[in-house]
Amino acid sequence: MTVISLTTDFGLADGFVGIMKGVILRIAPHVRFVDLTHDIAAQSVPQAVYVLARAAPYFPTGTIHLAVVDPGVGSARRPLLVTTERAVYIGPDNGIFTRVLTEPGAQAWELDQPRFWLPQVSRTFHGRDIFAPVAAHLANGIPPDKLGHPIADIVHLTLIEPRRHSDGSLSGEIVSIDRFGNLISNIPAAWVASGGWRCRIAGHDAPLLSTYAEAIAGALVGLIGSDGTVEIAVRNGNAAQQLCVGIGTPVELWTTQ
Amino acid sequence: MTVISLTTDFGLADGFVGIMKGVILRIAPHVRFVDLTHDIAAQSVPQAVYVLARAAPYFPTGTIHLAVVDPGVGSARRPLLVTTERAVYIGPDNGIFTRVLTEPGAQAWELDQPRFWLPQVSRTFHGRDIFAPVAAHLANGIPPDKLGHPIADIVHLTLIEPRRHSDGSLSGEIVSIDRFGNLISNIPAAWVASGGWRCRIAGHDAPLLSTYAEAIAGALVGLIGSDGTVEIAVRNGNAAQQLCVGIGTPVELWTTQ
Amino acid sequence: MTVISLTTDFGLADGFVGIMKGVILRIAPHVRFVDLTHDIAAQSVPQAVYVLARAAPYFPTGTIHLAVVDPGVGSARRPLLVTTERAVYIGPDNGIFTRVLTEPGAQAWELDQPRFWLPQVSRTFHGRDIFAPVAAHLANGIPPDKLGHPIADIVHLTLIEPRRHSDGSLSGEIVSIDRFGNLISNIPAAWVASGGWRCRIAGHDAPLLSTYAEAIAGALVGLIGSDGTVEIAVRNGNAAQQLCVGIGTPVELWTTQ
Repeated sequence: MTVISLTTDFGLADGFVGIMKGVILRIAPHVRFVDLTHDIAAQSVPQAVYVLARAAPYFPTGTIHLAVVDPGVGSARRPLLVTTERAVYIGPDNGIFTRVLTEPGAQAWELDQPRFWLPQVSRTFHGRDIFAPVAAHLANGIPPDKLGHPIADIVHLTLIEPRRHSDGSLSGEIVSIDRFGNLISNIPAAWVASGGWRCRIAGHDAPLLSTYAEAIAGALVGLIGSDGTVEIAVRNGNAAQQLCVGIGTPVELWTTQ
Repeated sequence: MTVISLTTDFGLADGFVGIMKGVILRIAPHVRFVDLTHDIAAQSVPQAVYVLARAAPYFPTGTIHLAVVDPGVGSARRPLLVTTERAVYIGPDNGIFTRVLTEPGAQAWELDQPRFWLPQVSRTFHGRDIFAPVAAHLANGIPPDKLGHPIADIVHLTLIEPRRHSDGSLSGEIVSIDRFGNLISNIPAAWVASGGWRCRIAGHDAPLLSTYAEAIAGALVGLIGSDGTVEIAVRNGNAAQQLCVGIGTPVELWTTQ
Repeated sequence: MTVISLTTDFGLADGFVGIMKGVILRIAPHVRFVDLTHDIAAQSVPQAVYVLARAAPYFPTGTIHLAVVDPGVGSARRPLLVTTERAVYIGPDNGIFTRVLTEPGAQAWELDQPRFWLPQVSRTFHGRDIFAPVAAHLANGIPPDKLGHPIADIVHLTLIEPRRHSDGSLSGEIVSIDRFGNLISNIPAAWVASGGWRCRIAGHDAPLLSTYAEAIAGALVGLIGSDGTVEIAVRNGNAAQQLCVGIGTPVELWTTQ
């Protein structure tokens, strides 16, 4: 029994995700679906990179992750399959797998065998016509070698990495905003494990606390989030709205000891 | 193992869809669910007609499609089951199955056997009290003849069909708007397969292109959509918002060669 | 095969629910998921109490209900497991199980065995790190005695109950608002089974009707809702918006005969 996770920017209103699942169940009736998210901002490949890399480690080994955020659909961008020691990833070659390609054993394949696709391939919905049926055939045991051919020159996004400076300060950026308006940075918790720290974002200062419960209601605070990175939050409030900031906003930390 | 798809206007916030699934799993533990959409506009039977007809061909043969958009719940409208060669449809007799009734072998049944319903039937939630348990019993092998009796005079919606005019021009209307604001018409791709075409909608003209990637960012264009019909889109933009148009807006096409 | 229902305030955009499901499937591949809702208002424990108690009776016996609305995560609040004759409930000890604790055979356990949790427990996402793996081990047959120890002094919310007054009138409050803006009270249908009744809410009067179809479009009416309580609705309208009222608004009923 294979698990297939789905990550798209399709939303849930139009039935497109349900159609992809119908296509898969016609071919591979025994797969299990987990929706990761269908609310990636329209065509935001960087957001999908982050969501996918964050979630994949928690899934069973051998999970097939379908990721369809595909602004280049209908153009020459290639359909892709990536295998790693942990999982399989299927989606467009547009950088969406930039982070998971660093997993051990990563190998990429261009999907070029239309006999494993739907008989009619539209120009605008490869999630239904190419990626879903390929995922289903893979779940049925068809090996990657039958579905495509190995390639090496795949598209990578340039991601801005967090840095430690010579004066002991740290810098990074907001990589995600959750439903509560908490601002999730890419600065690792390990870098602030000891000592006292303060955070600066958008001209505001905040202490780095060890629990949310320590914070005063309404106050801006830094915390270690569930992703193992520094987050900026407002207790019982919405930090993103209060600061009017978004993904890509710089964050700095400096030690107070 | 039977697949049950669900289409409603319940939204996901209140737990009503989860309750319907709980009811089904008590009776038929082995069914598989696929959510088609729960974001049909409140009581919009025409939207449900379109979403259901578009998705059904992609599902496994024998899928049970539960469709509960039910403004007449609690009145005299009848609970319905429709079997076709492809699938089974269960929902209210209010026109929601207008399109699927044209599938080969279509036969309708009025559900009139309360022993296959929940013991208490509310006046406002037949999805939970009638349609869900009937779907579950059907998945368990109870035949339609035990669940109701055949009927012929079921409710149809009058749908506006696309037309080819004597001067070679085409007309139709917008039948759906997707998450990106793309306007999906009911004009078939086959009608514009050869030659050059232009589209007109709400006083705006646009060329019919063969791929989204050919379009200039911000420009209004016609395309062949994944439904196999003409769509009107704005590359990297939202056509529905830009033109301020909705479902039912007329679309015309004429050949330029 | 065990059913696990999920109720959270996480929303579906961030992938947190998908991550919890991934964690569970790594441990217990054969469980079935039903999403009850992930749109509980942020940190609204009272709303979760109501949604959970309303849905639980419709699920198969033995269902595991995971409920994670957890404003105290990272503080001293205890992780909890509650067994009843009908089901198992897993979540924080913050009152979220106030209603289900009245089910026959209710017994509470504090979860205190980290060997059944993820190896690393974050301060902000116990849904992933504690509650999901415990639910999975329980589904695999690990008994509550191995997962924690019995406790008695768990947190209860004070819920306002409906009342019958000496003059025959009834009072209660709005406990939920559905997607259509219908205002669901906690006044039982059985109390208004005979005779004519009128409702008052926020200075407006409305008759209690027996079906939605009897109502005039745009008129405020009382109805018996699918929860078996009195609801206030506007036919083809949104009562919550029209009256500008929310959860906790008082409702009165009096007999007209």
